[in-house]
Amino acid sequence: MKKNKPTILVVNDDGITAPGIKVLMEEMQQLGNVVVVAPEGVQSGMGHAITIGKPLRLDQVDIYPGIEMYKCSGTPVDCVKLAVNKIFKGRKPDICVSGINHGLNNSINVLYSGTMSAAVEGAIEGIPSIGFSYDDFNHDADFSLCRPYVRSITQQVIANGLPEKTLLNVNFPNVTKIKGVKICRQADAKWEEEFEERADPYRRSYYWLTGVFKLRDKGEDTDVWALQNGYASVVPVQFDMTAHHAIPTLNSWSFD
Amino acid sequence: MKKNKPTILVVNDDGITAPGIKVLMEEMQQLGNVVVVAPEGVQSGMGHAITIGKPLRLDQVDIYPGIEMYKCSGTPVDCVKLAVNKIFKGRKPDICVSGINHGLNNSINVLYSGTMSAAVEGAIEGIPSIGFSYDDFNHDADFSLCRPYVRSITQQVIANGLPEKTLLNVNFPNVTKIKGVKICRQADAKWEEEFEERADPYRRSYYWLTGVFKLRDKGEDTDVWALQNGYASVVPVQFDMTAHHAIPTLNSWSFD
Repeated sequence: MKKNKPTILVVNDDGITAPGIKVLMEEMQQLGNVVVVAPEGVQSGMGHAITIGKPLRLDQVDIYPGIEMYKCSGTPVDCVKLAVNKIFKGRKPDICVSGINHGLNNSINVLYSGTMSAAVEGAIEGIPSIGFSYDDFNHDADFSLCRPYVRSITQQVIANGLPEKTLLNVNFPNVTKIKGVKICRQADAKWEEEFEERADPYRRSYYWLTGVFKLRDKGEDTDVWALQNGYASVVPVQFDMTAHHAIPTLNSWSFD
Repeated sequence: MKKNKPTILVVNDDGITAPGIKVLMEEMQQLGNVVVVAPEGVQSGMGHAITIGKPLRLDQVDIYPGIEMYKCSGTPVDCVKLAVNKIFKGRKPDICVSGINHGLNNSINVLYSGTMSAAVEGAIEGIPSIGFSYDDFNHDADFSLCRPYVRSITQQVIANGLPEKTLLNVNFPNVTKIKGVKICRQADAKWEEEFEERADPYRRSYYWLTGVFKLRDKGEDTDVWALQNGYASVVPVQFDMTAHHAIPTLNSWSFD
């Protein structure tokens, strides 16, 4: 362990063997002492799921020399919970970084994303947390343009901390040159599903979830706008889901 | 189909055979035309997970006479997506109700709860949506005190709609008399995990997720306070996770 260096928990949802987490580990090794706890398999789209109906496995693995790594049979959120409780045992990591996800987690995707939910769980634990995602699903995605931003954004968070009960959702566009960083709000959008129906060999129907991303927001202060215009987007995220502005309206209702 | 009556989508996360969804169906039948789409098994703690790595099954079932019901192999959010896309086929239900969950989904539980995530997905689809939960995990839970409130809250939502991009998180205390309804904010709390370690017959470790609910919030305007004091709690929930108040701070940072 390097002394006086921050301890950095690295998680993801694409699994411990994904290229994106290797890039994130490499960058974090330059900033501190790295501990990796990641799902053993793909956990994309798992949102804030936790495992309560079955037990969890957590096993140390040696994939990259000199890095303390564990694979977990559960969800990304389980990984954070197990890391805090069983690996760090109460003393907390100084920062939690999640990713780099293969595919964007901007806009409404923040809710479906295991990458972002792991970072949300870190924030609930009081750990400054960041989720990183890159607009390339390919196994041979080239993360090199993301690297300096991953490092500088993490350094800023280590140096300044984050506003209370917030975390960062960072997304990188797939462009030849990233123009810089834009602080954004989450764009209003939704997925329009197009379930693809097929028949199994026994002629029973099944469905594959597919969909089209529908933007409902023309704002130039959104993450979608930033990414479409060549910027890395940084959205501060909170886990208080209360629609505070709606409370007066509801207080005018009668429930008798 | 009753004419001029609202169409009501009923979902849950405890599965299509859970007692809580039967109570909800019965109450909704008094208010409109009911369509049920629920997981075939228990999907508690699934949060906003969606199924993307494997196909989904959706099959009509006849459990309760005269009610259109479907079981789904996926998550609570999958149920809503399949309902909108494959059952309602574009025309939307007038309201989406989720539950009644066996166990509270107040405070931070809104993030882990499949019940609430199904309602969130309904709201993303533009459907006025409500999640209902009751503080009793037992299979023979007595929901009778919840019934009039389930009905009156749903009637209010049908009559008034909901503020844009919000939904309701309704929780009922396990008491002999519910004092009334309190409009609340989500209490600040977290789960402190206590993973229970066991050894399998091959002497390898595994862990059961258990935990203790830690309240960090003394506010008397929270859902936890309302429930502890005998009221049904109603929290308006939003799916914009942006921490808008943190944007100016982040804009003062330099990422070069």
